[in-house]
This record gives sequence, structure tokens and C-alpha cells, in this order.
Amino acid sequence: MKAKVSRKAHFNAAHRLFCPDWDQARNQEVFGKCSNPNFHGHNYELIVSVTGPIDPITGFVMDLKVLKDLIQTEVEDVLDHKNLNAEIPEFATLNPTAENIAVVIWNKLRPHLQSALELEVQLYETPRNYVTFNGL
Amino acid sequence: MKAKVSRKAHFNAAHRLFCPDWDQARNQEVFGKCSNPNFHGHNYELIVSVTGPIDPITGFVMDLKVLKDLIQTEVEDVLDHKNLNAEIPEFATLNPTAENIAVVIWNKLRPHLQSALELEVQLYETPRNYVTFNGL
Amino acid sequence: MKAKVSRKAHFNAAHRLFCPDWDQARNQEVFGKCSNPNFHGHNYELIVSVTGPIDPITGFVMDLKVLKDLIQTEVEDVLDHKNLNAEIPEFATLNPTAENIAVVIWNKLRPHLQSALELEVQLYETPRNYVTFNGL
Amino acid sequence: MKAKVSRKAHFNAAHRLFCPDWDQARNQEVFGKCSNPNFHGHNYELIVSVTGPIDPITGFVMDLKVLKDLIQTEVEDVLDHKNLNAEIPEFATLNPTAENIAVVIWNKLRPHLQSALELEVQLYETPRNYVTFNGL
Amino acid sequence: MKAKVSRKAHFNAAHRLFCPDWDQARNQEVFGKCSNPNFHGHNYELIVSVTGPIDPITGFVMDLKVLKDLIQTEVEDVLDHKNLNAEIPEFATLNPTAENIAVVIWNKLRPHLQSALELEVQLYETPRNYVTFNGL
Amino acid sequence: MKAKVSRKAHFNAAHRLFCPDWDQARNQEVFGKCSNPNFHGHNYELIVSVTGPIDPITGFVMDLKVLKDLIQTEVEDVLDHKNLNAEIPEFATLNPTAENIAVVIWNKLRPHLQSALELEVQLYETPRNYVTFNGL
Repeated sequence: MKAKVSRKAHFNAAHRLFCPDWDQARNQEVFGKCSNPNFHGHNYELIVSVTGPIDPITGFVMDLKVLKDLIQTEVEDVLDHKNLNAEIPEFATLNPTAENIAVVIWNKLRPHLQSALELEVQLYETPRNYVTFNGL
Repeated sequence: MKAKVSRKAHFNAAHRLFCPDWDQARNQEVFGKCSNPNFHGHNYELIVSVTGPIDPITGFVMDLKVLKDLIQTEVEDVLDHKNLNAEIPEFATLNPTAENIAVVIWNKLRPHLQSALELEVQLYETPRNYVTFNGL
Repeated sequence: MKAKVSRKAHFNAAHRLFCPDWDQARNQEVFGKCSNPNFHGHNYELIVSVTGPIDPITGFVMDLKVLKDLIQTEVEDVLDHKNLNAEIPEFATLNPTAENIAVVIWNKLRPHLQSALELEVQLYETPRNYVTFNGL
Repeated sequence: MKAKVSRKAHFNAAHRLFCPDWDQARNQEVFGKCSNPNFHGHNYELIVSVTGPIDPITGFVMDLKVLKDLIQTEVEDVLDHKNLNAEIPEFATLNPTAENIAVVIWNKLRPHLQSALELEVQLYETPRNYVTFNGL
Repeated sequence: MKAKVSRKAHFNAAHRLFCPDWDQARNQEVFGKCSNPNFHGHNYELIVSVTGPIDPITGFVMDLKVLKDLIQTEVEDVLDHKNLNAEIPEFATLNPTAENIAVVIWNKLRPHLQSALELEVQLYETPRNYVTFNGL
Repeated sequence: MKAKVSRKAHFNAAHRLFCPDWDQARNQEVFGKCSNPNFHGHNYELIVSVTGPIDPITGFVMDLKVLKDLIQTEVEDVLDHKNLNAEIPEFATLNPTAENIAVVIWNKLRPHLQSALELEVQLYETPRNYVTFNGL
């Protein structure tokens, strides 16, 4: 019997949308005010979900306290109160869209989970805009 | 790499549940107070999700500003502050249940999206009742 | 020692904004699409708050089960799934704005509460628009 | 045409995490404060989703009033304001984790639904921790 | 210039409503299923608000990190994952209603705040039931 | 008869906490990671409330569409997707704490409201931290 367990977390960060391959005028044209050179920011709400068999002894797919601590050390400690473009190496050459941030978070968490478990990352950039990524 | 991007929107409308093939007594029996001939109404909360590959240049599955504008012109401008039964042609002969409203919205949006993108519509009729439709 | 106890409830209704003293053109000019003659509707979220001394024996300002039942009989049974303009006598000559609906609800509940208790009504017409009325 | 209809419900209960096969020291070591012998409790938020074809006459996958009543009689009346470990037979020998509670709820509802309908249960133990189970 | 700053927190606990001056039959009659001798529980959501002048240098009424830590040590560490009736001395002879829990929390926090600051405690027992206490 | 009408809005911005009278070391000591020189950011949720008499003809304290447009031009167009420290003149010498941002917003809106109306501004910096300012 398989179930999906989910844990919500959050972090605050500054960013701007910017393609390094384009000049500022082209960035402004495509990304509008999201490309403001002085940055803007968000309260990112994150939902990490892990799918796998329910352990018949503990009744857990995975101890959510372990997942909470993993999100803390691998994601919140790294991204919270940071400028994504200026301070996070992955975004030196990668545009920090919600899609790409979700992929980066997925890649940070995946090595710490048993291979039999499936991983899904859902990231709210605002209460009205969000993205879901499951590694496929 | 594929991701799902989602955008929340909303509109307010009046409706009544009513099967044109049935008389008023049968409608009342099946739909109860939801079939009140004088109508009632809802704040419909809508989540539109689009799944597709992440563009390696922009980092977007789809520009959510484009999706926001599409929902505005194709759904909100058409349904907001309307009486669904009386003013929306699709519901002249179709019962405006949450299921059918979701299908109508899906059909309005589908032609405006690239064929490689998958579309899902989620519609909250109330904070406790909602429906999900993905065209299958 | 005084405290304020609050209970959330909800009802769905159709309405249109309409001043009976004005003609349709003037109503349309002032109220825009909210004055659509075919009606539109809302999920009204209601918060009823009662302030008074904490009973030293029970630890209650007021039994919230009693308040829940009072809201059910005096407000939900009366307004839910109704057309406010067409079916609720108070709105025959009163424009059913959120402000006026809150006043009508306050007047329906006030006689059923002990005079030493203060009453406040908060009404969400949409998740972004709401009104607060306390009888003053 | 298939859609998924969802209904939210809720119940309050006390529980403790406890594996009957382990002694108290081992339970304390694995489950920490969640294994407090005096119990703690939660407001469980429940989302029950049913997937199936949209009836061409009624426009329903399933009447949500019927689903609401089913959740009331099979889940809320049984679990609300109860001590899961002490009063619910299923948990006499089963650890009442969110995963296992979701499985128990799924098993209570499944026999009451037509076999062509798919059933999914989502259970929030807290606003930040939840589990999804669909019978597979 | 004065402002009110607010911080949300939460804890989970078991309780039962019970007046020690009454026998079990009278408790059952007044409190119904809330008086179940085996306890039930809640996710209590807590909002602590502090009102005072805005410091012209820091721009703070009070550093919310300090308030967060105070709530952690004085409230969450004390009440989280506990049985209020059995393990919290204040409720040995006091019925743990939402009103009384709010008063107990207010009394725990008040001595740690400067006397010029006003304190308000808001406690959600469920998403639909809550209480507000400000010491008056 | 008086009522309070409220309208929710939102904007995204980058900021850092920084007292110009202090050096970087002192700022870091007091504000911690909130003083990161590369900035971080938030989704600010804003609730603007206006209290006054209900107009006996329209049933409005104030047309919320007018209030919505006022918030758009005076607040959202000015602050959205901006760096508060670098781009908003008021914060050139004022620390952009939630308290001070609320005061700045209050000052921007106050001149546009009739003097008989009371104004309150509530600003959520995160879902767990918020501030309320009413001009006193």
C-alpha cells in the first residue's frame, strides 16, 4: 500500500527574471517589471511530497520530522533571505523562474531520499501562481 | 524536463441547477434548494494548470502573464457577474453544475494553447466543493 | 474578565445592486456589472462575534454550539440559496450591498442574545471584499 | 468525459503514535513527543475525491450532497471528538499515523461507492502535514 | 505613532471540557461530546498581537523574532503535544475552554513584555471557532 | 449607522532592514539575515479598511471599486516589483520594516479619502507576521 506524504515549508528571497544570453532591452521586453535590475521578492511557499509504501510497523511512508529537517538544511538554510541571482550558484547562469527554482530544489532533495521513493516539489511564487515538478 | 504551471482566478455568477428534460417537480426533487427558480450564486475560484516542457532559454513552461490575460478574456470577461442559465449560451441546454462549468471553461481555453501543452481546470464552487477536469 | 468569541458560517445567494429610487440607467452607471438585471451571486462567509464576561463555572462567554444553531436558524436557513432581492423582504426596498446585508444579519441575531453581550458581524462578499458592523 | 469531484470535511480527535510491538522506551525514541502517553490531538481536515464519468442528464459525477452525507455517517460520526487509540477498533493494533487514518477512512467509504468510481482520500493532520491515499 | 504587530504560532493538544464542580452526567449534559472522558484534540492556531509606539530608530514596535522566541518558550514548549487537563497545572481546576486557554496564554506572556505595550491573544480552536482576549 | 469596509490587495517587493545611522556590523547584529546587503523579498498582502456612515441611498460606506482603484494607483503601481530601499524615496532614510511600510501606505491613501472616513492599514509581510496601523 502506497501513500503520498506532504510537508509545507517557506522561505523569502529576492530575484529578478533575467536571461544572461539577452541584453537588458530584450529582458525588459520579455519579462517586464519582473526584470527590474534592482530586484523584487517573494514569500515562496513550498510543498514537498514523497510517495512510497507505508511501513507496516511504523505506519509511516517517511517520518515527516525527518523530511522537515531535510527541507530545513537543504532548502531553507540555503535560500531563505537570499538574493537568488546574486548569491545562489545555480542561478548564475539559470533564470530563477518558479519552474527553475522548483527544479533546483528537487535536485537538492533527491539525493537524500531512498531511491524507491518518488519526489514531487510544488512551489508557490505568489498565492495565485505556482508550479509543480516531479523529475520527469 | 516538464513542469505544471498553475494560475488562480475567480468570478462571481448566479445559477440554478435545472435539467431542461425534467419538469420543475423532478428538478426540485433531485437538486433541492440548488434548483430555486429565483437562482442563487457563488464566488467561483478557478485554477488553470498547463503542463509542458520548460523552455531552456526563458525558464518558462508558459508565461503566466499570458495565461492570466487568456483567462481574463476567455473566462472572466464572459462569466463574471453573469447569470449562467440565462446569459451563457452553453448552459441554455446544459445543467450548470460545477462539472459542466469546468468542461465549458476547458473548451474555451483549449484552442488558445499550443497542442503540446496539457490543460487542467479546477473549479471551486464553494470552499468545500470543487471539481477537476483535464479533457479526458 | 471579558473575551470575544467568534463563529464562522457561510451561505450562498444571488443578488444585484439596485436602488429602487433610481431608474435602470442610473443604477447601471453607479453599480456597473453589479447591477446586471439577471443577477449574479456570491459565497458569503460570515463571522459572528459575541463579547462578554467569561462565566467562571463553564469557562464560556457563550456556548458556541448555541451560537452556531442560532446562526443556522436565523441566518443560514433564511438566506442560503436565495435570491436576496426577490425573496428576502428586507431587501424589497433596501439595496443588498455587503454593508446592508451585515446590518440585516445583525438585526436578526441581536434579539436572541442577552443584552449584556456585544454583537459584531463580519461579512465577506468575496475573499477580497468584506464589511464589519457592530450596531453603532 | 470524466471529472474528479472533491468534498472537504473535518473532525477533531486525540491520538498518540504507538507501536504495540515496541515498549514505551522504543516508542518514545522513534515518535518523540508524538508518543506522549497522555495523548495530544488534531483538527483533521479531510478531502474526499471521487473520479468518474459526468452523467449526461444530471451533469454530476456524483451528487456532492450524497457524498457529504456519506462522509458524515461513515467518518465524522465515527471519529469526531474521539480518542483514536482508545475508542476506534481499527487502531487497537494499528498505529494511528496520518497514513493509516487515511487508509482506514478509504476502507470505510469504498464499499458505499459504485465500483466504476475511483476514490482518493487526502488528510491534513496539521496545516503543514498531510497525506494522500487512493487505494493502490 | 502606534502600531499593532502580530505573530502567528500553533500547537497541538488534547483536552476535554469538564467542570470539576459537576458530576460526569452534568458535564455530559452541558458539554456533550466535548466532554468525552477519553479526550479529543485540536490544532490550536495562536495570534499574539502587541501594540505600542514605533521605535524611530529601528522602525519596530517590537522585534518579531523576539516575540516568536517568547511564544516558543512560554507557550509552545509548554502546551504543544500535551494533554491540557492532565498535564498543565492551570487546568487542574479550570475548564480548558478556548476562552480560558487564551487567558492562561495571556498571563504567561504578559510578564515578559514591557508595561507600556498592550497585549492581545487570539486563539483558533478550529478554523471556524476562535476567541480574542486582551486582558480587560 | 457606521460600518467598516475592507479591501485586500497585494504587491511583491525586495527590501533589507537597515538603519542608515548605524554601520553594517550594528545592522547585522540587530537585524540578522533580514539585513542581507543583497536584499530579500516578500509577497506583501495588504488590507485597507475604511470606516464611516452607510449612505442611505447607495448602501455603501464607500464604493469598493473606487477604493480598489485608489490602492492600485497610490500603492500597487508605486511599490509592486520594486526594491523598497533603492527605489522608493520614503525609504531613503527610513528603515522599511512592516510598521514603516504600513505608515507610508497610510500616508499615501489618507489625502484621497473624505475627512469623515477613518482609515486603517493592515500589512502582512509573511503569512505569520503582520502589522496594523490606523494613524493614531
